[in-house]
Amino acid sequence: MKKNFSIMNGDFVLKNEASILVSDLSIQRGFGIFDYFRTINNVPVFFEDHLDRFFYSASQMKLDGWIKRNEIKGLVYKLIEKNNLPDSGIRITLTGGYSEDGYTLAKPNLLITQSAFTFNKEIFEKGIKVITYDHQRQLPSVKTIDYLMAIHLQPFIRAKNADDVLYYHENEITECPRSNFFIVNEKDEVLTPSKNILKGITRKKVLGFSEFEMKETIIKTGDLQSAKEAFITSTTKNVLPVIQIDGRKIGNGKPGEITTAIYEKICRMKEK
Amino acid sequence: MKKNFSIMNGDFVLKNEASILVSDLSIQRGFGIFDYFRTINNVPVFFEDHLDRFFYSASQMKLDGWIKRNEIKGLVYKLIEKNNLPDSGIRITLTGGYSEDGYTLAKPNLLITQSAFTFNKEIFEKGIKVITYDHQRQLPSVKTIDYLMAIHLQPFIRAKNADDVLYYHENEITECPRSNFFIVNEKDEVLTPSKNILKGITRKKVLGFSEFEMKETIIKTGDLQSAKEAFITSTTKNVLPVIQIDGRKIGNGKPGEITTAIYEKICRMKEK
Repeated sequence: MKKNFSIMNGDFVLKNEASILVSDLSIQRGFGIFDYFRTINNVPVFFEDHLDRFFYSASQMKLDGWIKRNEIKGLVYKLIEKNNLPDSGIRITLTGGYSEDGYTLAKPNLLITQSAFTFNKEIFEKGIKVITYDHQRQLPSVKTIDYLMAIHLQPFIRAKNADDVLYYHENEITECPRSNFFIVNEKDEVLTPSKNILKGITRKKVLGFSEFEMKETIIKTGDLQSAKEAFITSTTKNVLPVIQIDGRKIGNGKPGEITTAIYEKICRMKEK
Repeated sequence: MKKNFSIMNGDFVLKNEASILVSDLSIQRGFGIFDYFRTINNVPVFFEDHLDRFFYSASQMKLDGWIKRNEIKGLVYKLIEKNNLPDSGIRITLTGGYSEDGYTLAKPNLLITQSAFTFNKEIFEKGIKVITYDHQRQLPSVKTIDYLMAIHLQPFIRAKNADDVLYYHENEITECPRSNFFIVNEKDEVLTPSKNILKGITRKKVLGFSEFEMKETIIKTGDLQSAKEAFITSTTKNVLPVIQIDGRKIGNGKPGEITTAIYEKICRMKEK
């Protein structure tokens, strides 16, 4: 079997041996940020957008200043060359570092890992069922490692026979734990929440599709009732139809016309 | 220098070499729970209370079922014997484990670490200044490793010339990131928030002091104005006077009479 490497603080390590001392603030205090992007044919997809967000997250959490953008880029290209996994997902993680007192920030640890990933087109036709849940993520605009609630809710999601959870708070829809949320309303406008969310890169690209009437706005929980179509966007899922919310069918329970058009366009864009 | 050991999944490892593979859900997703207690003269303080809470946290996060209470106790006593650090803090951490997909719970990793700790009586006289901040911790009753907001707020706390942050939400005071909060009102009642908090062990002991008029209740942000005394409780701080909130002095800015009496009683109880 081909060896898969990671990069820890600039050095190659075997991925299945990469480890971190337990004094790191990720383990002690759940403190860290990351970003995740795909490679297709060994080319990082939307790399600059992901780097922009990575450095925004690092800066918000006072983890920047230790490493430069060009260094990260160089390490990513070294890893791509070393592993030769043409279709993959690459995760860059920056943790709070080895803290003396287990609470104060130290020099961050930088970890870059790569895993094989190929987009599975079959998931589009099937779509997903979501269940709503009242929760507001803390520091939502920052891509932190905090998925405590999302993982805590896994048994609840399974019990409700759903595939994922859709968060709302104070009657406003926000996002799923790992994806952004959109609806198509009766006027064929494509709406997505404007605030209290992580601004996804696929979301950003979709919002740029000028042949659709795109709006960043407030989506109330009550607005879900009249949605003709609904979908989520993410790096790994591209555009994925939401065919059921809280047990109620959206549209005819199949991928809608506008969702399909947006899906096809984002796929072409990523794989160009 | 004397060697300090930790216990990782049942085995002794040198503390400064203890590490965890990066596929662990604590590093990937900030997912884990812990508890922390002191030893005085090699005797764990309020050990059963801390074990109760540890297993409550584990059960809430679906991390239980892998290890029994008696096994944990046995490991703690083994570590106490091995390290011979009579006055210490011991932390038992249970993480989400080595997840195949970086999202789904796996077999937890159990880590027990011990550090020298002696209570410093001088901190009591000095007291602390706190600054309030609107935030509600997620899953507040569970002692998770999530201190993302607390660490994020460190520069804000420093900028405000404060020592710690006091959370409130919807006008109700809850707690500090690592301690519980109490006030003494004009009727000499000792009040502490009843809900949306982590139920501290020192808090529990203090609530049992029947010579004071203790009440678990709702403390509104507006109630701080009329507080005669205020203090926080925690395993490491015992009882610590809050002498200033948002720049406003509490009482005469010195440890109050009731705070001092409660402090002396909890110290005697821990060191008996």
